[in-house]
Amino acid sequence: MHTVELKHAYRLLNHGPTVLVGSQHAGQSNVMAAAWAMPLDFDTPKIAVVIDKATLTRELIDASGVLSINVPCVAMKDQVMAAGGLSGKTVPDKLARCQISTQPAPHTGVPLVDGCTAQLECRVLPATAHVAGPHDLILAEVIGAWADERVFSQGRWHFENAPPELRSLHHVAGGHFYAIGEAVQALPVTHA
Amino acid sequence: MHTVELKHAYRLLNHGPTVLVGSQHAGQSNVMAAAWAMPLDFDTPKIAVVIDKATLTRELIDASGVLSINVPCVAMKDQVMAAGGLSGKTVPDKLARCQISTQPAPHTGVPLVDGCTAQLECRVLPATAHVAGPHDLILAEVIGAWADERVFSQGRWHFENAPPELRSLHHVAGGHFYAIGEAVQALPVTHA
Repeated sequence: MHTVELKHAYRLLNHGPTVLVGSQHAGQSNVMAAAWAMPLDFDTPKIAVVIDKATLTRELIDASGVLSINVPCVAMKDQVMAAGGLSGKTVPDKLARCQISTQPAPHTGVPLVDGCTAQLECRVLPATAHVAGPHDLILAEVIGAWADERVFSQGRWHFENAPPELRSLHHVAGGHFYAIGEAVQALPVTHA
Repeated sequence: MHTVELKHAYRLLNHGPTVLVGSQHAGQSNVMAAAWAMPLDFDTPKIAVVIDKATLTRELIDASGVLSINVPCVAMKDQVMAAGGLSGKTVPDKLARCQISTQPAPHTGVPLVDGCTAQLECRVLPATAHVAGPHDLILAEVIGAWADERVFSQGRWHFENAPPELRSLHHVAGGHFYAIGEAVQALPVTHA
């Protein structure tokens, strides 16, 4: 993993991948899957993610004010599915059961998920309870970002020359995903 | 286009496509590209989309309280690029220049974009100015949804048996997109 400039952090989520959300508070950690995540701002970089208030992840984030957003790849499809299907509330050894391992993020200690092609360390924005309450919408600032240089370099994704198992996952329904696919180049815009 | 049950509307955006946002007020319409859009709730269905306050689209949405979210396909890559690069403020004939045509949505008249594989008619949620102001984040309820049955049927996307030019676009940076790719099936979760 190499460090991504914070001004490019939004690009890690710009193409709409399904993510894994890492959380930790008072010695308890969790990782869950989430399809509803997106960039919210460029610089300073911010993200938005929907996390149901019934989840352990939400309890940990609300208590600690920190979270990580991780971009898993095709090789991790079964781990992503398990992280979305098992609850940390009822399965105390969830991470082991999901075969998910993590490393503490440098600024906050929040877990970053091993094997992911991108990792964002985030701090919940102050005074955003007005959306977290009614809409389960967490708004957070990105304070650290890392990516796998086999697929993300010079500030953008380059999937086409990397092993296919490193492609991002995009959840459709019930364990059906699509991997990100072929490169498509649009014509430049003519302003004349 | 066929009608999508509102309880399935979130699935039109669940895989993270780049979208076209339609808007209209007092006889003026616009369509712009946006990569930062996602579902916000299942039922009633809601969406979240980031729209810069400097845009004509934002002015029209703020004035009318309605918008459309449309999922363009590979065949529309140059239209999406043009819709993202030209401003309706400075290019009065923007839609013609972008070769974009629209049809009025049944409930609100907001423009739905022709050629897109999914269309969502949306009404801005009341009392969400607290996120629209500081974060340019528009929260809206989905009041109508339609999809192209060649790629969306039985409540989910099925890209694998359709022409490749119908695949969704996922913007990376500067006119570089990836099309959605190969189907990936995860193992069912074992709760035992």
